[in-house]
Amino acid sequence: MLRVAIVGASGYIGGELLRLLHGHPRVTVVAATSDRFAGRRVDGPHPNLRGHTDMCFVGHDTLESADFEVLFLAAPHRETMGKMDGFLKLAETVIDLSGDFRLRDPEIYASYYGVTHTAPHLIPDFTTGLPEWHRAQLASSDRISIPGCMATAGILAVRPMARAGLIEGPVQVDARTGSSGSGVSSGPAGAHAERSGALRVFAPFRHRHEAEIAQATDRTVRMTATGVEAVRGVQVLCHAKLASGVSERDVRSAFRAAYKNEPFVRVIAQRHGLYRLPEPKILTGSNFCDVGFAVSADDGTVVLIGALDNLVKGGAGGAVQCLNVRFGWPERTGLEFPGLHPN
Amino acid sequence: MLRVAIVGASGYIGGELLRLLHGHPRVTVVAATSDRFAGRRVDGPHPNLRGHTDMCFVGHDTLESADFEVLFLAAPHRETMGKMDGFLKLAETVIDLSGDFRLRDPEIYASYYGVTHTAPHLIPDFTTGLPEWHRAQLASSDRISIPGCMATAGILAVRPMARAGLIEGPVQVDARTGSSGSGVSSGPAGAHAERSGALRVFAPFRHRHEAEIAQATDRTVRMTATGVEAVRGVQVLCHAKLASGVSERDVRSAFRAAYKNEPFVRVIAQRHGLYRLPEPKILTGSNFCDVGFAVSADDGTVVLIGALDNLVKGGAGGAVQCLNVRFGWPERTGLEFPGLHPN
Amino acid sequence: MLRVAIVGASGYIGGELLRLLHGHPRVTVVAATSDRFAGRRVDGPHPNLRGHTDMCFVGHDTLESADFEVLFLAAPHRETMGKMDGFLKLAETVIDLSGDFRLRDPEIYASYYGVTHTAPHLIPDFTTGLPEWHRAQLASSDRISIPGCMATAGILAVRPMARAGLIEGPVQVDARTGSSGSGVSSGPAGAHAERSGALRVFAPFRHRHEAEIAQATDRTVRMTATGVEAVRGVQVLCHAKLASGVSERDVRSAFRAAYKNEPFVRVIAQRHGLYRLPEPKILTGSNFCDVGFAVSADDGTVVLIGALDNLVKGGAGGAVQCLNVRFGWPERTGLEFPGLHPN
Amino acid sequence: MLRVAIVGASGYIGGELLRLLHGHPRVTVVAATSDRFAGRRVDGPHPNLRGHTDMCFVGHDTLESADFEVLFLAAPHRETMGKMDGFLKLAETVIDLSGDFRLRDPEIYASYYGVTHTAPHLIPDFTTGLPEWHRAQLASSDRISIPGCMATAGILAVRPMARAGLIEGPVQVDARTGSSGSGVSSGPAGAHAERSGALRVFAPFRHRHEAEIAQATDRTVRMTATGVEAVRGVQVLCHAKLASGVSERDVRSAFRAAYKNEPFVRVIAQRHGLYRLPEPKILTGSNFCDVGFAVSADDGTVVLIGALDNLVKGGAGGAVQCLNVRFGWPERTGLEFPGLHPN
Repeated sequence: MLRVAIVGASGYIGGELLRLLHGHPRVTVVAATSDRFAGRRVDGPHPNLRGHTDMCFVGHDTLESADFEVLFLAAPHRETMGKMDGFLKLAETVIDLSGDFRLRDPEIYASYYGVTHTAPHLIPDFTTGLPEWHRAQLASSDRISIPGCMATAGILAVRPMARAGLIEGPVQVDARTGSSGSGVSSGPAGAHAERSGALRVFAPFRHRHEAEIAQATDRTVRMTATGVEAVRGVQVLCHAKLASGVSERDVRSAFRAAYKNEPFVRVIAQRHGLYRLPEPKILTGSNFCDVGFAVSADDGTVVLIGALDNLVKGGAGGAVQCLNVRFGWPERTGLEFPGLHPN
Repeated sequence: MLRVAIVGASGYIGGELLRLLHGHPRVTVVAATSDRFAGRRVDGPHPNLRGHTDMCFVGHDTLESADFEVLFLAAPHRETMGKMDGFLKLAETVIDLSGDFRLRDPEIYASYYGVTHTAPHLIPDFTTGLPEWHRAQLASSDRISIPGCMATAGILAVRPMARAGLIEGPVQVDARTGSSGSGVSSGPAGAHAERSGALRVFAPFRHRHEAEIAQATDRTVRMTATGVEAVRGVQVLCHAKLASGVSERDVRSAFRAAYKNEPFVRVIAQRHGLYRLPEPKILTGSNFCDVGFAVSADDGTVVLIGALDNLVKGGAGGAVQCLNVRFGWPERTGLEFPGLHPN
Repeated sequence: MLRVAIVGASGYIGGELLRLLHGHPRVTVVAATSDRFAGRRVDGPHPNLRGHTDMCFVGHDTLESADFEVLFLAAPHRETMGKMDGFLKLAETVIDLSGDFRLRDPEIYASYYGVTHTAPHLIPDFTTGLPEWHRAQLASSDRISIPGCMATAGILAVRPMARAGLIEGPVQVDARTGSSGSGVSSGPAGAHAERSGALRVFAPFRHRHEAEIAQATDRTVRMTATGVEAVRGVQVLCHAKLASGVSERDVRSAFRAAYKNEPFVRVIAQRHGLYRLPEPKILTGSNFCDVGFAVSADDGTVVLIGALDNLVKGGAGGAVQCLNVRFGWPERTGLEFPGLHPN
Repeated sequence: MLRVAIVGASGYIGGELLRLLHGHPRVTVVAATSDRFAGRRVDGPHPNLRGHTDMCFVGHDTLESADFEVLFLAAPHRETMGKMDGFLKLAETVIDLSGDFRLRDPEIYASYYGVTHTAPHLIPDFTTGLPEWHRAQLASSDRISIPGCMATAGILAVRPMARAGLIEGPVQVDARTGSSGSGVSSGPAGAHAERSGALRVFAPFRHRHEAEIAQATDRTVRMTATGVEAVRGVQVLCHAKLASGVSERDVRSAFRAAYKNEPFVRVIAQRHGLYRLPEPKILTGSNFCDVGFAVSADDGTVVLIGALDNLVKGGAGGAVQCLNVRFGWPERTGLEFPGLHPN
């Protein structure tokens, strides 16, 4: 059994890591840290784990004396980079779920996160934790940075088109996200009476995930992010112009070529049916990212759509998938849950 | 125009008072206090008032120099009683929406609120702000205490039966409430990701509104309160045993007799249709309390049902209705909104 | 009192017309037709009207013998045009809420509705029922066609920019709508278990309201429509390129100039606060269309946002506002409800 | 691999059976019938199964020529009993999810279902599919009848108290259920705009599951059923009088004694925390039934609470658990999903 530890295990991403790793047949979680909850049971903040584990949180300072091979980091953006040197000494393999090592260019990081990157020398060591596009590198990488939830959906939806040269010009992304994306401490803005039924355009421009999609697709990306009524779930609608002469068939072929062997990407673009395009509603709890498209023959445009559960494929599930790749295990291990319908 | 002031105007009840009183043709709001928001526009925390008023909040200490005849109190339970002597000096008429002057017996208050009542001498001066049962007294009362939201629904559903001697024994109340009942500062328990889709039995016994229903009906009342998925809305299901020989027709007659001339109570007990029993969904924003019943001939029991919008009939709307009664205006003044369907 | 009749009064738009017109101090509803519900009370399908009216639906064939001056049509698209000649004989003034007389060009109608227009000779007689842009004509028009719900939000958000020449190139509209937009008979696709929590891209291209926005703004418009979790509510995000040299200040000025005297359009574009951009959540039941914007100085783009209640400003409320304009009454008459917060 | 078939596989329970049985390591689904969808892929009506199976529905008449050992019946109440003789010839083991063989007494069946039972001779052959109380019999039973969803929650909450003699007198059950309980064809009552946000008391008395709880607990049971805002999820609050001298400790002990070794029942009755009592929100997709209680020392009453996912533990999951018991497999096989938080 592989021994792993989780930093920041009391948050929502931490809880999903605990859920998935406890169900993983090749992994033992030896430590889950939380300064706030140290000494208390993990099934307090994560009540779905009742009956599955008697584990308690430990303080971050106990990690030094613990023995593990993989460290998952679910710590806040901006804080993680300053501590990364220390984390790297604790474990051979580090899988980071913060935003601090996602962007290759520290200047762009500074521009999107509003602070100077304090560990730019470490950035090149990190591989993007997206097996669909970086599987080979991930198989031998010991520093993995999991992309943001909306970025994962956007990259998986846009990159096949961008790589195949089927689209041109900028990409307009309309991203929608549920409330769990704001984390456990969402404050007054996250109070149910305010957040329920919201269509809150919280980032009309320059959401941080925009930079990740641009980086992964070599496109100018403009993204608008809206909080919608849901706890889990992300959906992106990406509008682009088709290159001259590109047909719907070409688009479909490019998607199929990119993802036909992927365990966690389904191409959904049907003519009929309620769920003919990707929708997060049926993905809750699953590690799928559904991608799809609709081509407007009239004016040569396409809308590329991606959907996922932000805490699974857009976070903890993506991290576990990378773990599976890194250790050469079947990629679906511990990630078999298919999602629910109706839900 | 009658000049009124509101204490605690930045909360949800305060916002409803502002909405209703701004739309009231005989009232001018001269002051709305909030220590936290003093100097800022009321349409900040109450964005539905944009375009309706340029009013700003003032600090509580400005009330002394203001000139008004009626003071609405939307201040917290337990704090209000200690300040009541001061409030009573500020205005001729005081309408209190806190829980502090609802219970006639300070012992019962202490038992339900967990603190000793610090102004028991003032309790007898207050009239219960429920026009359906205390209209005559309210017409000449200058101290009015508005009942709790679940209590209002429960009293209106149960009291006609209790008064007519149609039920006997204890009453079991199953109360359901939306998230706005917890107020603006609902804390981590009120975060959308935790509260959304909840069926949270937050008070299996001894909710404070239980004592109000018992007081108003002279019955032993056992109430269980559950937070349900809604922002606004309260529904109570009250189970009781019918007295010997009581028929469905008797129940219907008693309801009709009690409420046939009431402007804001509708008796809803139909054989068919989606909305054949009271449901808060169609009452949002309105001052109605719908009451209804279903009789089980088999075993001689009845379920009495009440539904309302907790911020309107269960709070600010009830207070405005009392104002109308007190000043001899048509009772519907400023309260005409009928509710929406679908919603 | 002006005498009015409503065709198609059992649907959701019909119900809102009944609610608003019953509350209108200058109007009497003399007939509300429904073939399916003829002879039954209007408060059956519209339970919020209980206690407000004892009216019953009548069959369509009774209209000939009724006496009224204004006829509201809430009949289906495609059916209305064939019957319009008959309707015009029944009343001096006809206000049509179907889609059949919104588009000036029958070719475009055919292209978007999939059928040939059967009464193209009548189209020129109709004035677009949007007082913000056609007030003068509406004041003397006896044929009024109310725009679609998403179209209303889109036109009010985009037209000031388009008219002032502040934007150039095509406009990408991301429209979101609640379930009531599908009407009473939404079928299996509208079942709660399927529609709840949906982010359903039901029209990636060529939604009919797209053509209306294009017509009103003289722009190429590409619209994607998504069904979201809400009963009422429409929000549009309209992405456009700013013309050279246009600043945020210019955008704000153009909005202010267009709407500063409008009773039902508020410009919402604040730097702070939860509701700093338009959101339908606080507009339920109200006749407001909130419009706003965010400018990206970086790349010279703007997102123009509109929000409204699809059954009120996007339907029945817009029709009542047009009635007020047509008859020279204060425009807010019968439309005073400000919306609710929280909700 | 055990070969199984499913009758009525296009409904919601059928879909859950397909999901669970496809993930079950010892089972092969050889036929899934649907007259309406025969010849079409199962991942049409069950889109969460995309990528998991290429299976198509078959007509019911193909079952005769198919080869399987276990038959799951997800056919409608009242229809199933008439066909049961035929079904029993098709497979050695039949697991019925309809209501037709749940009640031991055909008179009571007639009273609750409104029709005479047409196969009363078969009733005694069926074992109640509730392993917690009938494990030994189920291990050798070839006719299994799965209890209703609300009945399962109610029986698991009440029976330990009833059996231990800790409660006396009638039990008042307040049951709440999500919209998926109405099935795929919920009709106009199930339309999103009507069902969203509902607190619909659809059965104030004599819901069919009431009879099952009475049968299993030997108590007089009065149940009121309310449709609440949720797709999945059932919660029951069962109010009872404690027998003389019974303490909270006694109640806790009885629950622990009943369920301490149960894989799918957790006793949740904590003093603190958001999820201190059972709530279906965190059970979606899981096979748990959480049970809990709160004792009112004041008046010697108790509220017993049960919560589950109506399509899993209250339906398909319960059936798979019985299958595991019947074939001697570890009871958690295929049912490992722990549920999600937040959700």
